[in-house]
Amino acid sequence: MLNDLHHADIAEILDELDFDEATYIFKVLDSEKTAEILLELEDDLRENILRRLSAKEIAEELDELDTDDAADIIAELPQSKMEEVISELEDVEHAKDIVDLLRYDEDTAGGLMGKELVKVNVNWNVLTCVKEMRQQAEHVTRVHSIYVVDDEDRLKGRLSLKDLLTTSTKTPISEVYIKKVDYVKVDTPDVEVARIMQKYDLEAIPVVDEMGRLVGRITIDDIIDVIKEEADKDYQLAAGISQDVEADDSILELTRARLPWLVLALFGGFVTVHVMGLFEAVMKEHGKLFFFTPLIAAMAGNVGVQSSAIIVQGLANNAITGTLAQRLLKELSLSLLNGFILAVILFLGSHFLLGFEFAIGEVVAIALITVIITASLIGTFIPIVLNKYGIDPALATGPFITTSNDILGILIYLNIARVILGF
Amino acid sequence: MLNDLHHADIAEILDELDFDEATYIFKVLDSEKTAEILLELEDDLRENILRRLSAKEIAEELDELDTDDAADIIAELPQSKMEEVISELEDVEHAKDIVDLLRYDEDTAGGLMGKELVKVNVNWNVLTCVKEMRQQAEHVTRVHSIYVVDDEDRLKGRLSLKDLLTTSTKTPISEVYIKKVDYVKVDTPDVEVARIMQKYDLEAIPVVDEMGRLVGRITIDDIIDVIKEEADKDYQLAAGISQDVEADDSILELTRARLPWLVLALFGGFVTVHVMGLFEAVMKEHGKLFFFTPLIAAMAGNVGVQSSAIIVQGLANNAITGTLAQRLLKELSLSLLNGFILAVILFLGSHFLLGFEFAIGEVVAIALITVIITASLIGTFIPIVLNKYGIDPALATGPFITTSNDILGILIYLNIARVILGF
Repeated sequence: MLNDLHHADIAEILDELDFDEATYIFKVLDSEKTAEILLELEDDLRENILRRLSAKEIAEELDELDTDDAADIIAELPQSKMEEVISELEDVEHAKDIVDLLRYDEDTAGGLMGKELVKVNVNWNVLTCVKEMRQQAEHVTRVHSIYVVDDEDRLKGRLSLKDLLTTSTKTPISEVYIKKVDYVKVDTPDVEVARIMQKYDLEAIPVVDEMGRLVGRITIDDIIDVIKEEADKDYQLAAGISQDVEADDSILELTRARLPWLVLALFGGFVTVHVMGLFEAVMKEHGKLFFFTPLIAAMAGNVGVQSSAIIVQGLANNAITGTLAQRLLKELSLSLLNGFILAVILFLGSHFLLGFEFAIGEVVAIALITVIITASLIGTFIPIVLNKYGIDPALATGPFITTSNDILGILIYLNIARVILGF
Repeated sequence: MLNDLHHADIAEILDELDFDEATYIFKVLDSEKTAEILLELEDDLRENILRRLSAKEIAEELDELDTDDAADIIAELPQSKMEEVISELEDVEHAKDIVDLLRYDEDTAGGLMGKELVKVNVNWNVLTCVKEMRQQAEHVTRVHSIYVVDDEDRLKGRLSLKDLLTTSTKTPISEVYIKKVDYVKVDTPDVEVARIMQKYDLEAIPVVDEMGRLVGRITIDDIIDVIKEEADKDYQLAAGISQDVEADDSILELTRARLPWLVLALFGGFVTVHVMGLFEAVMKEHGKLFFFTPLIAAMAGNVGVQSSAIIVQGLANNAITGTLAQRLLKELSLSLLNGFILAVILFLGSHFLLGFEFAIGEVVAIALITVIITASLIGTFIPIVLNKYGIDPALATGPFITTSNDILGILIYLNIARVILGF
């Protein structure tokens, strides 16, 4: 029954089973589909299945796959098995391409690209071109663009399938090809490739080496994965999760991703305890002040996260314009407005809702507005500065910003109380 | 100079200028490019430029665009101008298609699809097909797939360009076409379309109406926007931003997006103040306990956000397996492990680092582990339940979860103190 399903559906079903069942079913499935299924499986299960396959069996699967996907799977194998598998690959050209791809860093264009592409020589005519393409297309699942190269394999331009369909067969390629072609270099970072492909609405982009020779192409489906991974990573950092984990990862993996930020937050908490300790003497007369510390700290944290998230997202989408000073000035106006409204609510709430005396209401209201301004400026400033120094600004969201704003918020609050109440 | 640039680059430059300058430059640019530029501009600027163009001028721009893009721009116009623009459209077929697209909700397949596609009749042969395609391709920027329909325009399957390139011209289409074709209905939600296209690695998907007739196609570039918007939205909700805003939006828009969550958090803060107020009598003897409330609240908030983020992301990626009970049990083990490690650090830290007495250390350590367990169970439970009832689980991250965990954390902490210290 499974053999009739799409490979992505089979992979989804196997992911739900335990390793032994899934591996068993994988082994009895139609061999045409297993290579594609392997690609779609979750990492743990794939690792498990690969461990139970011989080098020859793995090589058979890889022979079915595109070079970039095959290289991704080989890269997951232990060194010794990797070499064994490569030596078992049947198609020598394919094997050469895969080995070539293994050289590149996975976060670069080289690591994303595949070798399957259709290219034609600038000196041919449309007829030769169509003939050659028919042959090349055998090895290419989807024809995105036809790249035009010179005798040295240097990228000169591209040919659209549509133009090819609508041009007479005798026309020389040099007359119909489009000289303007977007491309990336093998060492272009993957996020930059994603940015370029999105901006110019490309479905595939050619990759050239240091000498301008066409060495591969990247297709949009690989870019979608890059975009999703980036978004997921930013989201996880904002939530205080320090490495890529999924709900189904092991408890140990999840702990490794979560505990570091929690320890950081705990040490930040020590500082808040210490700061309040400094004001212990005030407790006798103004003990009620301490009821407001979690509120002030929480508001500082929330405002800081909001500000930093907007900046981080703006940086990711290339949508931050103006200077740092302009940005801070805008954030200042914004936090003055928000801060004022919230301070009024807090003042009225502390008095009428919670029954605190006027002086306390005054202190907490003034403290709140000050804390909101400070927190939002810090939330704006830190990611922009991190970004300027090449550090991922997403680090500045989540526990880091909430913890530092907690500390600062309580410090500001108690000092404002000291000035106003005169202790 | 601008006329030599790619339209996406020109749009990026215009976005940096003020409205008057940008509108002026837009008007003097080569009219071939202006339609595409219009598409790429930021919303505010586009709105501003459209306001300064006559209905006839707008219609001229729209005549250059694909139906889906043209419909998106028309939908932004005020009702009266919309009708005027439509009546000015030159190409009647194009106008009909655009009006047709305006019927659909923008969050559905109908709202995403374009009318430009290449379709062939199942009764033709390859030769007729290629001839017809040449003609149809004139109106289609990119040929993704060739759809096969019957005489009633009902979707029967698809033809790959590659097969067409490699098959003899006399072959009837009915012999070469692929009967299995993924498709969506006009009312399929956009996120579902995105899920299907990603899962099956599709670059385009046909859209059919209630009767199975082919009415349009959705391409992967539109899906990338859906994926990015979803990710951005989840990220913003996690950061306490309640509607889609960008760093460059006005202060009023930003306030509208940020203030509601802050007000919610402030009211949550009132509750924490009230809870601590209930324990005011304890302050004389055990005042030091109050130094730890921000720490406990912050840890509860951080743990809750981590747990909910992992679930929200898992739900978004369809990667949550097992029952709710299994999920909670896993979270329980995880939080026991994390909680124990953190409680030990807190116990030692409170004693040796901060010099608190043994009893306080004991209370805060026990409270911390309890609070971490509670917060992580709540962080897991709430998004799963929201999702079950069709509410966006991302609402459960950010200020909502931190605020409720603040309250609960402090409540648990002070009650554990009451039991242990016996007041």
